[in-house]
Amino acid sequence: MPELRQNLISRDWVIIATERAKRPEEFVKRKEQKPLPEYNDTCPFCPGKEDKTPPETFRIPASPAGGGDKKPWQVRVVYNKFAALACAGEKTRNINGICRSMNGVGIHEVIIEHPKHNALTALMTESEVANIIRTYKNRYLAVQQDKRIESITIFKNHGASAGTSLEHPHSQLIATPIVPPQVRQRVTEAVNYFDDTGRCVFCHTLQEELKAKERLVVETENFVAFIPYAALSPFHTWIFPRRHMASFAQINEAEITDLAGNLKNVLSRFYYGLNNPDFNYTVRSIPLDNRESDYFHWYISLIPRVSQTAGFELGSGMFINVALPEESAGFLRKVKLP
Amino acid sequence: MPELRQNLISRDWVIIATERAKRPEEFVKRKEQKPLPEYNDTCPFCPGKEDKTPPETFRIPASPAGGGDKKPWQVRVVYNKFAALACAGEKTRNINGICRSMNGVGIHEVIIEHPKHNALTALMTESEVANIIRTYKNRYLAVQQDKRIESITIFKNHGASAGTSLEHPHSQLIATPIVPPQVRQRVTEAVNYFDDTGRCVFCHTLQEELKAKERLVVETENFVAFIPYAALSPFHTWIFPRRHMASFAQINEAEITDLAGNLKNVLSRFYYGLNNPDFNYTVRSIPLDNRESDYFHWYISLIPRVSQTAGFELGSGMFINVALPEESAGFLRKVKLP
Repeated sequence: MPELRQNLISRDWVIIATERAKRPEEFVKRKEQKPLPEYNDTCPFCPGKEDKTPPETFRIPASPAGGGDKKPWQVRVVYNKFAALACAGEKTRNINGICRSMNGVGIHEVIIEHPKHNALTALMTESEVANIIRTYKNRYLAVQQDKRIESITIFKNHGASAGTSLEHPHSQLIATPIVPPQVRQRVTEAVNYFDDTGRCVFCHTLQEELKAKERLVVETENFVAFIPYAALSPFHTWIFPRRHMASFAQINEAEITDLAGNLKNVLSRFYYGLNNPDFNYTVRSIPLDNRESDYFHWYISLIPRVSQTAGFELGSGMFINVALPEESAGFLRKVKLP
Repeated sequence: MPELRQNLISRDWVIIATERAKRPEEFVKRKEQKPLPEYNDTCPFCPGKEDKTPPETFRIPASPAGGGDKKPWQVRVVYNKFAALACAGEKTRNINGICRSMNGVGIHEVIIEHPKHNALTALMTESEVANIIRTYKNRYLAVQQDKRIESITIFKNHGASAGTSLEHPHSQLIATPIVPPQVRQRVTEAVNYFDDTGRCVFCHTLQEELKAKERLVVETENFVAFIPYAALSPFHTWIFPRRHMASFAQINEAEITDLAGNLKNVLSRFYYGLNNPDFNYTVRSIPLDNRESDYFHWYISLIPRVSQTAGFELGSGMFINVALPEESAGFLRKVKLP
C-alpha cells in the first residue's frame, strides 16, 4: 500500500509510491562523463580574466598575504553579468487593474568557488569548502544592510539538468525586494507551530530524526544531514544546524568549519554513490525583517536531479517520490568514501 | 530594468528578467526528431494488446456500433499498472510524533488518447481531441462519486523532459484523498478576493486580458487561451472557459467541442512554432468538497518545457522568466498553421 506523508515544516504532502518504488541503485547515473580540464581558455571564471568579469565585491586570496586584482585567489564574488535583478533603483510598486508589479531591484552575485575549472565540492579540501561558506556569510551580512532587500537566497546549480550550462564551480546569491510567498508561508506555519507547542518545529524535527536514526546521513559536531520523513524526491537531503539559529548570518567560525566537513561528506556520498549526479542546493534562511526568532531555523536543502517532476506535481503541488526515504538514507550511509 | 510581477490568482511573484531575456525564436527546439511508427509491437497501449493492460474503466469505440473488448476503439481508460495510489482500502490517518501519514488510497487511471502510437494532439482532428476531453469528463464524474476522494488532477506529460518515457499519447488522472495544500491555498486566495471585491478573480482576470489583448493567443466561442501577465516560464499558457464554472465537471457538450478546437490550436502553435517541444498540461478544478462556488473557476494550464528550473526556484518558490509574456504571445499568434 502506498503512503501519503506530510512534511511538518512545509505542510506539503508527498506520495511515497511503494508500488513503483525503485531500488537506490537504480538512481545511479549511467552516463559516462568526460573529465573537464583544470583550465578552460573560454571560461570567464578561470584565473587571468579577472578584468573581463563584472566588478568584484569580495575575494579570499590564495595566500594570506593577499594582494592586488591579478594575484591568485581562492574564492571570488562578482556581480552577475546577466543579473535577474538590477542593483540600482528605487523600490516602487505599481498596481494597474489586475497587473501588480514592482521595479526589479535587488542584488544578484556569482560566487566563483575555486580557481580550478574542474573543481568539485565533493573533492575539494575541507578548508576550501569552508572558504566558500565563509564567503556566503560575508555576502549575506553585506547584502542584508541594503534597506530595499527583504529576503536572500543562496543556491548552487551543478549540471545541465540542475539549470546551469556554466561548468566552472560557482554558486549564486539573489536578494529580492519582497519576501517570496513560499518563504512567508513557511514562517507562518512555524509561528503557528510555536504558538501551539512552544517549540521550534525545526528543532523538534531534528530531535525526532536523531531519535529515529533511520533517515540520518551524516552527523558532525554542529550539523546533522538527514533525508526528511516526507522527502519530495529521491535523496532529497536536509542539513540542519544543531544550535537554534533563525538566520544563516548567525553561523559562527567553528560552525563554518564543521559545516564544510558535513557538506563535503554529503556531496561525496552523492558523487561516489550516485556517480556525480546533477544537483541543486539552497540555503533557506529567515526573511530579513525578522532576523532573530524562536520559531524559525535556517537549513540547507539538497536536491540531486535523479528524477523528473511532471504534470501531477505542476498541477497539484504534491510530489510523487519513487524512493523510500529510509532506504535512500541507508544507501547513502553505506557509500564507501576514499 | 527587470520587472517583478505578481500573479493575482496564485499570489506567486515572478522576475521578468529583461537583462537576460531571449527572443522567442531562441526557444525553438533544435534537436532533430526521429518520426515514430504508427504501431509499436512492444507498446502496451497499441491496439491488439487490450488483455495485457490493467482493467479498463471506460472506452469510446471507433464506430458508434461499439462492440466487445477486441473491437477498435478511439479512446481507452485503464488503471495505471504502476499506480501511485491504491484503489482499495480505507482512508486512515496516522500521527506519530513528527510523522504524519495516511494510507495511500486513491485512483490513478491512464487515458490512452488514440490507437495510433505516433498520434499528437496538435495533429489530431478536432473530433478526436473532443473525444479525449469527453473522456476526461466521464472519468471526473465517475471518480468524484468515491467518498474517499477530495481532489482530482488530470494531466498530460509529453516528452522525456516533461516526465514521461512512454511515447504512446496518453494522459493521466490522479484522485487524492486530501486537498493538496497548493490547491487549498488558491481556494483561500479566491475566497478572499471574492470577499474584498464581490467578483471571481478568474472572471476578472479574463475580462482584463480580453481588454488588454496583448497576451491573447487563441479565442474561440467558449474559451480563451492567453499567456498570464505573470507567466512563470516562457510560453506558459492558460485556457479559461468564458462561462463561470468552478468544476471541470460542469463543462457541457458544446463547450467540449469548442475546447477541443482551442486546445488543438494552442498545441499546434507550440508544435509548429517551437518544433514539437516537450510539454505538460493540467486541468485545475475546485476540490470536491465545494463543487459549485461563485469564487473559483476551473482552467487548463500548459507548460512547454523550454527552460529549466534551478536552485533559485527551488529555494524561494519564485520563478525567473527569461521571456516577456507579451512577446511570447505575439510570437504564438503569428505562427502559421497549415
